[in-house]
Amino acid sequence: MIKANLFYAQSGGVTSVINASACGVIETARQHRDKIGKVYAGRNGIVGALKEELIDTSRESAKTIAALRSTPAGAFGSCRYKLKSYAENKREYERLMDVFQAHNIRYFLYNGGGDSQDTANKISQLSLEKGFPITCIGIPKTVDNDLPITDNCPGFGSVAKYVAVSIREAGLDVASMCESSTKVFVMEVMGRHAGWIAGAAGLASEEEGDAPHIILFPEIPFNKQKFLRKVKSCVRKYGYCAIVVSEGAQHANGTFLADAGGADAFGHVQLGGVAPFVAQLIKAELGYKYHWAVADYLQRSARHIASATDVEQAYAVGRAAVEFALEGKNAVMPIIIRGKGKKYTWRIGEARLVDVANVEKTMPRNYIRSDGFHITAAARAYFSPLIQGEDYPVFKNGIPQYARLKKRLVGKKLKKWKAN
Amino acid sequence: MIKANLFYAQSGGVTSVINASACGVIETARQHRDKIGKVYAGRNGIVGALKEELIDTSRESAKTIAALRSTPAGAFGSCRYKLKSYAENKREYERLMDVFQAHNIRYFLYNGGGDSQDTANKISQLSLEKGFPITCIGIPKTVDNDLPITDNCPGFGSVAKYVAVSIREAGLDVASMCESSTKVFVMEVMGRHAGWIAGAAGLASEEEGDAPHIILFPEIPFNKQKFLRKVKSCVRKYGYCAIVVSEGAQHANGTFLADAGGADAFGHVQLGGVAPFVAQLIKAELGYKYHWAVADYLQRSARHIASATDVEQAYAVGRAAVEFALEGKNAVMPIIIRGKGKKYTWRIGEARLVDVANVEKTMPRNYIRSDGFHITAAARAYFSPLIQGEDYPVFKNGIPQYARLKKRLVGKKLKKWKAN
Repeated sequence: MIKANLFYAQSGGVTSVINASACGVIETARQHRDKIGKVYAGRNGIVGALKEELIDTSRESAKTIAALRSTPAGAFGSCRYKLKSYAENKREYERLMDVFQAHNIRYFLYNGGGDSQDTANKISQLSLEKGFPITCIGIPKTVDNDLPITDNCPGFGSVAKYVAVSIREAGLDVASMCESSTKVFVMEVMGRHAGWIAGAAGLASEEEGDAPHIILFPEIPFNKQKFLRKVKSCVRKYGYCAIVVSEGAQHANGTFLADAGGADAFGHVQLGGVAPFVAQLIKAELGYKYHWAVADYLQRSARHIASATDVEQAYAVGRAAVEFALEGKNAVMPIIIRGKGKKYTWRIGEARLVDVANVEKTMPRNYIRSDGFHITAAARAYFSPLIQGEDYPVFKNGIPQYARLKKRLVGKKLKKWKAN
Repeated sequence: MIKANLFYAQSGGVTSVINASACGVIETARQHRDKIGKVYAGRNGIVGALKEELIDTSRESAKTIAALRSTPAGAFGSCRYKLKSYAENKREYERLMDVFQAHNIRYFLYNGGGDSQDTANKISQLSLEKGFPITCIGIPKTVDNDLPITDNCPGFGSVAKYVAVSIREAGLDVASMCESSTKVFVMEVMGRHAGWIAGAAGLASEEEGDAPHIILFPEIPFNKQKFLRKVKSCVRKYGYCAIVVSEGAQHANGTFLADAGGADAFGHVQLGGVAPFVAQLIKAELGYKYHWAVADYLQRSARHIASATDVEQAYAVGRAAVEFALEGKNAVMPIIIRGKGKKYTWRIGEARLVDVANVEKTMPRNYIRSDGFHITAAARAYFSPLIQGEDYPVFKNGIPQYARLKKRLVGKKLKKWKAN
């Protein structure tokens, strides 16, 4: 095996543990200096490769790299940028090849969701055709938990923990005051196409009457009358009703609830904000006083309440990606395999990129209660291990101290890249 | 001193540490069984006294009471209920006297904000006139930090920590992706009349370029053009702009920014939601892609990220309230006094309820930077000690375990109360 450099890029929406994967990649690569030269990270993801903006991670101290393990968001920058097919955009692929060749990059580790694994797969194939083979390994990442084959996606466990903790706490707040004040609380969570995040919030209801009382999933078409009846019955029974709504909650015709809110003060169609929509619907139809929250980025960056299991798995897939590359594997992605025993165990397995690319895994119907408003015991058994353990960052002056990188770029060797 | 029972009530909006005060009250009272009989807690606050719904805390185990220290929200229930003046509503005051007399209650500890201290003060006076003297002690509580005399209010330090941590984390998220995606992030925080909470978020910016870049205070009239120029300059300089806006942010004429958003889909004037308003204003005028978050109750119930200093002070004012009562003090409230040294120290002092009642403390102008968009070094020095230390609750199954009380009511002795 020739000694060559490794290129690592973060892709798509960031998570509170994607940097733990980066940490796993860089620390593992540093243990194999005989085979891996430098680890370059794309500045703002794959776009950094196109622009030849390569961050030289060797300029970062071991301490800084270790701190990545407990730093949220994308430390090297990420982007939503999907390469088109080779036929459609030959120029981009050839540019990537040029950059990799110019910097002796023979390993490409792409940390992202389904789209990214598709890209990594294409580059792997192309590099073979071009006679400059690149070992391409995917590293799973997504808060949405929608990748196939892997039992779960790093990034998901922490957002799951955040939403479960948050609805438990806010639920107690509402319960305190519901007799004379707010009776309905609506918390909006992420998950445009799948209800994994919304479902995980259901873990907070451990005993009869615990929040959340209702979960609105994208998988279950919204039925206004049935929903309102349920809200009313919760208020009667428990004094209040705590609702978790997925941003992807939709009508039977596939339009998002959030889109039904009409135009805002400027005449724009309102984006996001399904929580205020649901809250106002309840107020209009049932008259209950409401409050609502939209956690938005707070939920996917909340490293302070990350799941220790998630952090460990995120690190492990980063480490495994380097090990796979060193073992000569190609066009694969490390995945999490759940043990079959009653006690939760997991190990790293592998999936072919071609099987992972562009497949979206939604919540199985048997994870959703038959009335469509909560999770089942099967879902609970699936979710629960993923939020186990706390992995607190270091605090100084009362606030978490996250890695601050130098992000020094490698000297450029090629002509400036012009996007189409 | 005759042995008598103690009545404790929680009042107004709850916090993540008000139960720590309750814990301080009950644990301290239990150490003085020679003087204090039982501790009764009002079910849903003072309304519980009117309805003769008294929770017998002696039925709760020492373990459960200890768990209150790390349980958010109001464990006994709270309410927003301000007693009118005696002249206006003689009946209510006399009912309270009847209930106190019927249950041999000679100590009344009222855990709330300025309104509540006013009520406690009135009851103290009236009880003397009626010849059934009640020792009335206030216990400070408010996330808004707007009580006078005391250096700070228990409840505030934890919400301050939550907003500082949250904007740091979300800021990193936005920074990761701003080159190709979201450039503006707006986080709405509580504080209808004072910018204390918004200001505390400023602690997150420890180095040049750190989020938040802009804070909108209720104390500073909103200047649209100046604000938009500032947003633009932040995006140019840092690539993105992270904004914290107080729900109380207002125009020069005193109307809330949030009210300017017009009516919603149902024709109601939109309540809350200043974050989407600000975000959409920026989009309309500058074209930047935005995201926004409204933490709402999440911020004041986030016991999982409470300030250890705040928890300690909340417990201490609860304990001190009982000690004051035992020392024969009356119509006073324990307060936090800050030491004069460079190193932060604090001790318990006292204030007369009459001096605390109905006075609202806003941010001093010298805590706000001259351009009106951030905090000064003086503010930083004030805020920073209040968010120090972490005091994590116990987790089980990945979620915090909070006290579950029996809340057994004492047998009623009086006729049913009918509200007017």
